[in-house]
Amino acid sequence: MPSLRALAFHCALAPASLFLAQTSFMRILLSLMLLLSAAVTAQTSDSLTIRSIYTTALTQGDCYQWLHHLCKNIGPRLSGSQGAADAVEYTRYIMDTLALDSVWLQPVMVPHWVRGEPEKGRIISEKPGLSQQLTLCALGGSIATGDGITAGVVEVRSFEDLNAMKDKDVKGKIVFFNVPMNQAHIRTFPAYGETARYRVRGADHASKKGAVGMVLRSLSTTLDDYPHTGVMIYTDTVPRIPGAALSTLAAERLSEALQRDPRLKLHIRMTCETLPDVLSYNVIGEIRGSENADEIIVVGGHLDAWDNGEGAHDDGAGCVQAIQTLQTFRRMGYQPKRTVRAVMYMNEENGTRGGKEYARVADSLGEQHIFGIESDAGGFTPHGFGINDSALVSKLKANWGDLLYQFGLHELSVGGGGVDINPMREHGCITAGLHPDSQRYFDYHHAPSDTFDKVNHRELKLGAAAMATLAYLISEYGVQ
Amino acid sequence: MPSLRALAFHCALAPASLFLAQTSFMRILLSLMLLLSAAVTAQTSDSLTIRSIYTTALTQGDCYQWLHHLCKNIGPRLSGSQGAADAVEYTRYIMDTLALDSVWLQPVMVPHWVRGEPEKGRIISEKPGLSQQLTLCALGGSIATGDGITAGVVEVRSFEDLNAMKDKDVKGKIVFFNVPMNQAHIRTFPAYGETARYRVRGADHASKKGAVGMVLRSLSTTLDDYPHTGVMIYTDTVPRIPGAALSTLAAERLSEALQRDPRLKLHIRMTCETLPDVLSYNVIGEIRGSENADEIIVVGGHLDAWDNGEGAHDDGAGCVQAIQTLQTFRRMGYQPKRTVRAVMYMNEENGTRGGKEYARVADSLGEQHIFGIESDAGGFTPHGFGINDSALVSKLKANWGDLLYQFGLHELSVGGGGVDINPMREHGCITAGLHPDSQRYFDYHHAPSDTFDKVNHRELKLGAAAMATLAYLISEYGVQ
Repeated sequence: MPSLRALAFHCALAPASLFLAQTSFMRILLSLMLLLSAAVTAQTSDSLTIRSIYTTALTQGDCYQWLHHLCKNIGPRLSGSQGAADAVEYTRYIMDTLALDSVWLQPVMVPHWVRGEPEKGRIISEKPGLSQQLTLCALGGSIATGDGITAGVVEVRSFEDLNAMKDKDVKGKIVFFNVPMNQAHIRTFPAYGETARYRVRGADHASKKGAVGMVLRSLSTTLDDYPHTGVMIYTDTVPRIPGAALSTLAAERLSEALQRDPRLKLHIRMTCETLPDVLSYNVIGEIRGSENADEIIVVGGHLDAWDNGEGAHDDGAGCVQAIQTLQTFRRMGYQPKRTVRAVMYMNEENGTRGGKEYARVADSLGEQHIFGIESDAGGFTPHGFGINDSALVSKLKANWGDLLYQFGLHELSVGGGGVDINPMREHGCITAGLHPDSQRYFDYHHAPSDTFDKVNHRELKLGAAAMATLAYLISEYGVQ
Repeated sequence: MPSLRALAFHCALAPASLFLAQTSFMRILLSLMLLLSAAVTAQTSDSLTIRSIYTTALTQGDCYQWLHHLCKNIGPRLSGSQGAADAVEYTRYIMDTLALDSVWLQPVMVPHWVRGEPEKGRIISEKPGLSQQLTLCALGGSIATGDGITAGVVEVRSFEDLNAMKDKDVKGKIVFFNVPMNQAHIRTFPAYGETARYRVRGADHASKKGAVGMVLRSLSTTLDDYPHTGVMIYTDTVPRIPGAALSTLAAERLSEALQRDPRLKLHIRMTCETLPDVLSYNVIGEIRGSENADEIIVVGGHLDAWDNGEGAHDDGAGCVQAIQTLQTFRRMGYQPKRTVRAVMYMNEENGTRGGKEYARVADSLGEQHIFGIESDAGGFTPHGFGINDSALVSKLKANWGDLLYQFGLHELSVGGGGVDINPMREHGCITAGLHPDSQRYFDYHHAPSDTFDKVNHRELKLGAAAMATLAYLISEYGVQ
């Protein structure tokens, strides 16, 4: 273990330095050595503390059990739902058991969109064998279809494809964006970044050309029959039309069927609606700093999750990891110098009201948030952090890069944050995102398959330990 | 992409260098720049080739489909079984379809141990509520119990615990090694290394103290009801006694029951036996090198897998990744300078006969194996390689470390190899192991839960691409 080697080096150094302090040269040498010695002491202390964070997190951490409750006893928890309210109460209850300095709820009004009855999708064709059910789901925020829409289908691969078409060929049809995520990327987030626009803006683009509905191939890295929902946004410059996601298998089938019968019809039926806003809460717990209590570090995740799954990786994982950061500090007896706050944000998925309200309140109270870390990329093996401040990245690399590498944290990159913590940036807060392995995330993201069984207990706890480690370093050394 | 930046730099350099070649100073400068230019060209070429390896592997690789067949249509394939014979035929068939230069079978005699009927385990206690079934399985190579053994149980946490006991307290009993894998390790292999000795040698240690049987807590990183088998070895200096693994849940239950009733009895019944050796094969395919064909690079995995699961991660993954290395080279039109051979070794799990025979034949033919890479740690996201040659590690780091990092390969460490390729070391072959993420491996290792659904298609393909990348670099630049 590097910590033990560093310790041995420090112990060997001290007696030698006394003997050498005879000449001015020796005094300079001594100063240098004492400096080195102090640095070694700090590093040794950090090494031992971080080792303790990991041991505590891996052997005494409860995040996996908490996630089990959040997924299996509460389950779906979209903003405004009973599940969201239950999740608020549950995470407050958990933090109440951890002997923190404060635990409180921060009110925030959130949107309340509901899916309604299970959606229906069906290909209708006069060609034998082509008529079939298709698995699809409404996109979050979509309007309903009334009794259903039955229309011809225009398949496109991009907005450019769509815009190149004549309006008359699109008018009255359902536009089908069949854009697979690009598997050639080494990490999956860039592929998501390339295709998410079709989910978010596809309905409006289709409407502009006169379409009556929009379906898209789910943003997924795998081929299965789970449709992946997610937010869509109407700009209201064009008529609103319903938007839905087909499972990747259903998208393949629809595309094949269109090859054989370009005149087929697609029937979709969705009864979703947007209800009045609802009072909900961000859930907050903190350990007050012993020296610089006014400097606040946030570790966070978002408590809301789409209504079609259990929100295990997105983002139950981030919530329980944030809470476990505080549990770990308490269990190992570490008292942070700066204040460390775990925040479960509400409404990341379809409004980001919680993150905005948290930043607004912090600003109105004159709170000084120096650093925020969000875990919202799944409970997979952590690889490191993206941090939105190049000087801090350089400092972390120079002082603790080798040490962090020993714990599997090999990535310290510039740029990063999280949807919920980003609003704090304009008040001077440096933001960071936990970067876990990304390979499986979009297999489950926003889908019914985002369930507890997809989470590995060690990977989840390692993520919690990584967050605690970064919170510890910032708490000890600040961000300058 | 770094490759494009490097390319642009190279293109900008060439005309400038012509203009500058006027003085001797300029000539020296020119030489330096041409050297740099050549280096940049090589790096650009490597960058483009490696990018092509990954794109080909991720978008055109068939390893996931092959693994599906190996797991679902063939399944268990312990040495000597029909499954092992089927796997030999299947992987030969697959390689026959890849237009390789040669595909052949290498005969090897292998042990043939069979499990027999499903094992039985039961706690028998006079205390109410304690009598119960326990899930267990015979360890590979164990003798049978005849009609069953019913005996008292001695629970220990280590060999030291056992040796500290009086022989009379162990005599006639079943020794229960209840040694959990240490969860505090960041990577899981060291924890396996610490506890595997109880599986391999536990029965002999127990027998030495007069025990009539040995059961151990499965070597597993999770708590579930799957027993994990694995090889055990008799030294024959003491009487052979049966050895079995309890699921981790069963181990917890037995330990709890012993707390309440130290005089309980454990009944175990196993009908396993060792049959005469069987003729089997290593399966080999190669692309012959265009320049240094006599220098051979092996990429390998082992084809045999324990009889109680599908051998998905251990080691179907390694086999299909090795084959995909050759498929990738063919599909992208890369002709290696040195010979690259994919080897599916037989009998890694309970005898390592395939690896030994391969090395023996290679030596007898005077073949020069310069490098071997084995994938036998699961089909998870690859992190890098352990390579058994510090000079080569330094060379790879210096020349391609930054490039490999772009593809997620951040680990180039000294030390590594694989059970099957290690016998080639004594003939001068440098060996390497693919190092994937280790967190989930021991949840499934040697258990009925090592099934196809535990493998992610992208993670599997990334591992194949990593192997192909290292094989490419060695093929181009050798090991010096």
